[in-house]
Amino acid sequence: MKEYVIALDAMGGDQAPDAIVAGAVAALRRFPDIRILLAGPQSRLEALLRDARDVRERVEILPADEVIEMEEPPMLAVRKKVNSSMVQAMMAVREKRAGAVVSAGNTGAILAGGMLRIGRIQGIERPALAPVIPGAKKPFLLIDAGANVDCQPKYLVQFGLMGSVYMKTVMGVEDPAVGLVNIGAEAEKGNKLTKETYQLMQAQTSYRFAGNAEARDIPTGDFDVVVADGFDGNIILKYTEGIVGAMMGMLKANLMASRVSKIGAALSRPAFRKFKRSMDYNAYGGAPLLGVDGAVIKAHGASGETAIMNAVRQAREMLAGDVAGKIKARLAGLTED
Amino acid sequence: MKEYVIALDAMGGDQAPDAIVAGAVAALRRFPDIRILLAGPQSRLEALLRDARDVRERVEILPADEVIEMEEPPMLAVRKKVNSSMVQAMMAVREKRAGAVVSAGNTGAILAGGMLRIGRIQGIERPALAPVIPGAKKPFLLIDAGANVDCQPKYLVQFGLMGSVYMKTVMGVEDPAVGLVNIGAEAEKGNKLTKETYQLMQAQTSYRFAGNAEARDIPTGDFDVVVADGFDGNIILKYTEGIVGAMMGMLKANLMASRVSKIGAALSRPAFRKFKRSMDYNAYGGAPLLGVDGAVIKAHGASGETAIMNAVRQAREMLAGDVAGKIKARLAGLTED
Repeated sequence: MKEYVIALDAMGGDQAPDAIVAGAVAALRRFPDIRILLAGPQSRLEALLRDARDVRERVEILPADEVIEMEEPPMLAVRKKVNSSMVQAMMAVREKRAGAVVSAGNTGAILAGGMLRIGRIQGIERPALAPVIPGAKKPFLLIDAGANVDCQPKYLVQFGLMGSVYMKTVMGVEDPAVGLVNIGAEAEKGNKLTKETYQLMQAQTSYRFAGNAEARDIPTGDFDVVVADGFDGNIILKYTEGIVGAMMGMLKANLMASRVSKIGAALSRPAFRKFKRSMDYNAYGGAPLLGVDGAVIKAHGASGETAIMNAVRQAREMLAGDVAGKIKARLAGLTED
Repeated sequence: MKEYVIALDAMGGDQAPDAIVAGAVAALRRFPDIRILLAGPQSRLEALLRDARDVRERVEILPADEVIEMEEPPMLAVRKKVNSSMVQAMMAVREKRAGAVVSAGNTGAILAGGMLRIGRIQGIERPALAPVIPGAKKPFLLIDAGANVDCQPKYLVQFGLMGSVYMKTVMGVEDPAVGLVNIGAEAEKGNKLTKETYQLMQAQTSYRFAGNAEARDIPTGDFDVVVADGFDGNIILKYTEGIVGAMMGMLKANLMASRVSKIGAALSRPAFRKFKRSMDYNAYGGAPLLGVDGAVIKAHGASGETAIMNAVRQAREMLAGDVAGKIKARLAGLTED
């Protein structure tokens, strides 16, 4: 049986290490074909694993006594804190002792570490953060959600390729439709970056470019992959969070304003809960950092046991589908264009 | 009594000219201190005004036999179609026969016409589109919502000034808090454009710069004015439209899934309606094009009688408050910094 080795940053995230270890144990129980390298303080992790004898032999502890804090300057942190749980987990991937790394820690440090400690796939200009986001018709992948600002057209063309590979391999979308976030549908619309990118995406043949994705159509649209500069992608991601929260608040205020609608709201509560869950963009696990030579998953900082379990599952799927390998293969085709 | 003269493009918008004329008549009945210059085909407009004898003497028809269509190349259209209703209405402002112009027509043509046919306020680098958008706590002005892509920092600094003047003069906000749309709250966060802009906004003293506006905080936040490059602003504007629609659709689907929640939804219907109205970003009239030497309002293309009436009211408020004059005055302060 093929075995997938996943390194886990046990000290990253608001609920570390307890929820991280619990999530690891849950994943180990669910997936007999994974092994986990748990990076963090030996004795503390040993203690947390005491009740997991059934899976204990599939866990290896990577001793790491430092922690990269949420607010630390990322580049400096990954350079200096070699003995941090995050860097140790990443080094395991670099040295091929693990295929994937999962961390709920400092996002900037995960991006910097992916570049510095694991390294890019040869030929990839810039790795990009690519969360899958719920849409009205179907989920879509947003790339880049914030790893790179001031992007060049050639970066965006590669984002499209990486996103296409991920959606096909991990989400099972047959021939993903890749859209370019823009302010109009027509080819000549947009800023310098999107106009140039449009031409390049149009010219390449290694994925299906479906044209410009007008912001209005992103949540409702037919795109499986939505490509943007990391500045714009991050705005779309964060703005979605903000507006969903704001709208639910405004709607609630309206519902609570009258006795009748209050009763109505009470009757509809299960539907509202279901709706809120369907809007949760953590539903599809963490955000993969695509373009690094290995599987890197950035789990939400607030991740609890289930979120970590899902992120580990996601890492396993990326390894099982060999996402990095497929990106390399397709990149050959792209550069031949 | 001071009188405000507003030029109206009677042929712009999906419901032109009937709804436009009806909106003009409603505004004339409501505001005794306005006069309207109605640009369009003489005989057709005469006919539509037949039942408005009570206000007829406050309407002057500007004969215009051409129409700028919604899909026409803007720059070419405003150059070539001198006898179009839009250009004729704008010429009235240029020649000081009117103080303001309202059009529900081709957005690009309104922007191009504002520059070409009316002209910028001396010292303003780029006029910007500035709709007021509903927020969870309070409405906020988004500038630039799409008039200029590839902006320079100095443009954004002026956007902040123009937005601040509008929110104070028309919306009655005492000392508007101006935020810069960015991917982080800290000064050093962002792309080239926002990092440089932050420093310049920090240095100026002619309006209150409240720091970076993280996308997450825009809908819920405490900013009265939110400044962005027109590319990002347009994405925020259009994405808001898209996600509100998508969310309502997803919520409805969840509510209709069970008999009980269906009943609940029925009981809550008035609250839902109220909520939908509160999310409508046309509630505050059209989007002013700030920075041109006169008041220019771009009404929504789908504008009906009420929307046009509100846009005329808005134009009247911009004239009564002398928004253009106040921008000139403050600009002096800004350039002295």
